[in-house]
Amino acid sequence: MAGPLAGIRVVDLTLMVAGPVATMMLGDQGADVIKVEPPEGERMRHMRDSYAGLPPSFYSCNRSKRSLALNLKDEAGKAALRRLLATADVLVQNFRPGAIERMGFGEAAVREIKPDIIFASLSGFGESGPYVHQRVYDPVIQALCGLADIQTDRDTGRPKMVRTVIPDKTTSVTAAQAITAALFHRERTGEGQHIRLSMLDTMIAYLWPEGMAGLTYVGRETDPAKAQMGLDLVFETKDGFITAGAVADAEWAGMARAFGRPELIDDPRFRTATDRAEHIVDRRAVMSEEVAKWSTEDILARLAAEDVPCAPIRRRQELMDDPQIVENGILVTDHHPGIGPVRQPRPAARFDRSPSRIHRAAPFLGENSREILAEIGYGDDEIEGLIADGAVTARDPGTTADG
Amino acid sequence: MAGPLAGIRVVDLTLMVAGPVATMMLGDQGADVIKVEPPEGERMRHMRDSYAGLPPSFYSCNRSKRSLALNLKDEAGKAALRRLLATADVLVQNFRPGAIERMGFGEAAVREIKPDIIFASLSGFGESGPYVHQRVYDPVIQALCGLADIQTDRDTGRPKMVRTVIPDKTTSVTAAQAITAALFHRERTGEGQHIRLSMLDTMIAYLWPEGMAGLTYVGRETDPAKAQMGLDLVFETKDGFITAGAVADAEWAGMARAFGRPELIDDPRFRTATDRAEHIVDRRAVMSEEVAKWSTEDILARLAAEDVPCAPIRRRQELMDDPQIVENGILVTDHHPGIGPVRQPRPAARFDRSPSRIHRAAPFLGENSREILAEIGYGDDEIEGLIADGAVTARDPGTTADG
Repeated sequence: MAGPLAGIRVVDLTLMVAGPVATMMLGDQGADVIKVEPPEGERMRHMRDSYAGLPPSFYSCNRSKRSLALNLKDEAGKAALRRLLATADVLVQNFRPGAIERMGFGEAAVREIKPDIIFASLSGFGESGPYVHQRVYDPVIQALCGLADIQTDRDTGRPKMVRTVIPDKTTSVTAAQAITAALFHRERTGEGQHIRLSMLDTMIAYLWPEGMAGLTYVGRETDPAKAQMGLDLVFETKDGFITAGAVADAEWAGMARAFGRPELIDDPRFRTATDRAEHIVDRRAVMSEEVAKWSTEDILARLAAEDVPCAPIRRRQELMDDPQIVENGILVTDHHPGIGPVRQPRPAARFDRSPSRIHRAAPFLGENSREILAEIGYGDDEIEGLIADGAVTARDPGTTADG
Repeated sequence: MAGPLAGIRVVDLTLMVAGPVATMMLGDQGADVIKVEPPEGERMRHMRDSYAGLPPSFYSCNRSKRSLALNLKDEAGKAALRRLLATADVLVQNFRPGAIERMGFGEAAVREIKPDIIFASLSGFGESGPYVHQRVYDPVIQALCGLADIQTDRDTGRPKMVRTVIPDKTTSVTAAQAITAALFHRERTGEGQHIRLSMLDTMIAYLWPEGMAGLTYVGRETDPAKAQMGLDLVFETKDGFITAGAVADAEWAGMARAFGRPELIDDPRFRTATDRAEHIVDRRAVMSEEVAKWSTEDILARLAAEDVPCAPIRRRQELMDDPQIVENGILVTDHHPGIGPVRQPRPAARFDRSPSRIHRAAPFLGENSREILAEIGYGDDEIEGLIADGAVTARDPGTTADG
């Protein structure tokens, strides 16, 4: 059983995170994703702990793909890409605005080769405007889109960043959805099209429900900080940290019993949801004080017995041992011949008829150059000639991560 | 020109944020999304500042949908849902595991009505395991998935939450992608299927590239905190906050010139990217000190003139005036007859041949009950009978948000 996108070929010219994670999702769903890279490999291959060009972060953005290394400054390299594009359903690129046209692979040129291709252009900021010539840089997007404002420290008023690349990865999922919708449209109508998606637009659309609720009704704006649902419900136990929350009355009563403080149920500050919202500072103080009296294991058991939503705060190193995460089977370990065992999350969405899965390891640079060129009609001698001339880079199949 | 999902009907039984935002994306792309709600309306309609059941957060999760209010405890209400499902391509539900079966609309029952339907089940934690009976609660997912660990305060070691519902909304986009992939698969093969997606799995898959890079290679794990790319690059000016970064040597040199401190270029602590990474504490201190000497406007102009990536940190209230956001046209204002002008982000991905757009305002409860029942074959008298019996709730078309 193949994935839902079996039979689709994606030519992936993207680098870093946003584009590669988008095409990786398509690859996990069965698309044949061909990562076209320059002879030196894309930038992410050169991060520290590289394992012969497979640093762990590269691996986790580029599994379920094949690698074709082409010198696109060379006419023979360009000719190979053109021949590949004639077989492609989707082209994804995230160069700065204007660059793909200068390379000779703008939409008009590509559509001459493959009239119904889906041409997806990802950018940081869009195609025009004051920022488009900046290097795309996750914190700049976080600054502009309101995320740093959302994270403002309540005590100091200082905005803060989220410490992982939310804009990059949200753009990945959004791009994968848009490309898939365009494939559906092409299937019904025969029509390809150009999809344009910027990280900045992605983040504003993503944050707006809830994050920007207060700005929705023009002329009746409220401070969005006050409409935020997200609360920093972190409490320290004797030996760690947990989260716990009580929204409904029954949950609050359960929490009071779990603390061994049943008199809190009828405390006038906390009797109703409205009371509890009004006395949020007092309530947090009481909860902090009570949670601190217990070990993580004990207080979680007591809260769970009372049906109060709660969980330990997992350090990343502990994730693989969490019983819910084990139950879900979300983390899978495959053996890589060059590297050894590799841990990855399986694709999150589970399809019962066309299962999505990790189809192959992240490729070494040019690992699939020979086979892909053969598939698009190059003969063996031609292929070796392209390699000898530097138009194509191919990895010797015998080498390993340590080689 | 209709959107890429024109012609698709989605029956949406979801509530709160994750499910509704997923189906809203499908609605913006042209699907006919029918929000089936209980007679009292879904929970999000009852938040404060409700505007007759259209609080701003509800609006931003439920535009581009129609509302059909059915009493599913009533046999006639169930019959209406069955008749609707016979016309549907997709059913999305996010009840707790087991609930949809108890309501009589489990997969087997629905597939008898519509054999090739795509049945999408969203959950917080999965279908089995220690947490599945908890109320789904965004901070619990943040605690379990590693996001709270990623946000750990470097000074205190205390984990922290992101203050917006990242797990909910990432699940939305991931669900929209999976449903679209299943639609593509059905278009090619005629086969419907069941998609299962949990918020916990979604977040682990989402965070893994980059956020968990250090856990990828089994037996060669490194502390994931050290592999994090996200930096809290926030600097205070005389009158606000900016972000700015210098990764490449040329960017560092530009920054030094922008500060009027060209001697920093050859400072041995900062000469190469490696030097700068090693002396990150010193570098942040120098940058903080220099940025503080300027107004936001002046230092951003100087940094931009030197091609250093930088931006002001926008407060949410300022977003609509940012020149890049204005250039992109991401925020659009439509007039709602009951509420007045409503500000929304347009869909982020722009399709040039099958444009995605906001197709309609978020519906009042039961706003479309009569028209939908008529579309699936109920006569006028039958409809009024269902309403009189309480099986269906319909909004009188004459009423407004203040009514």
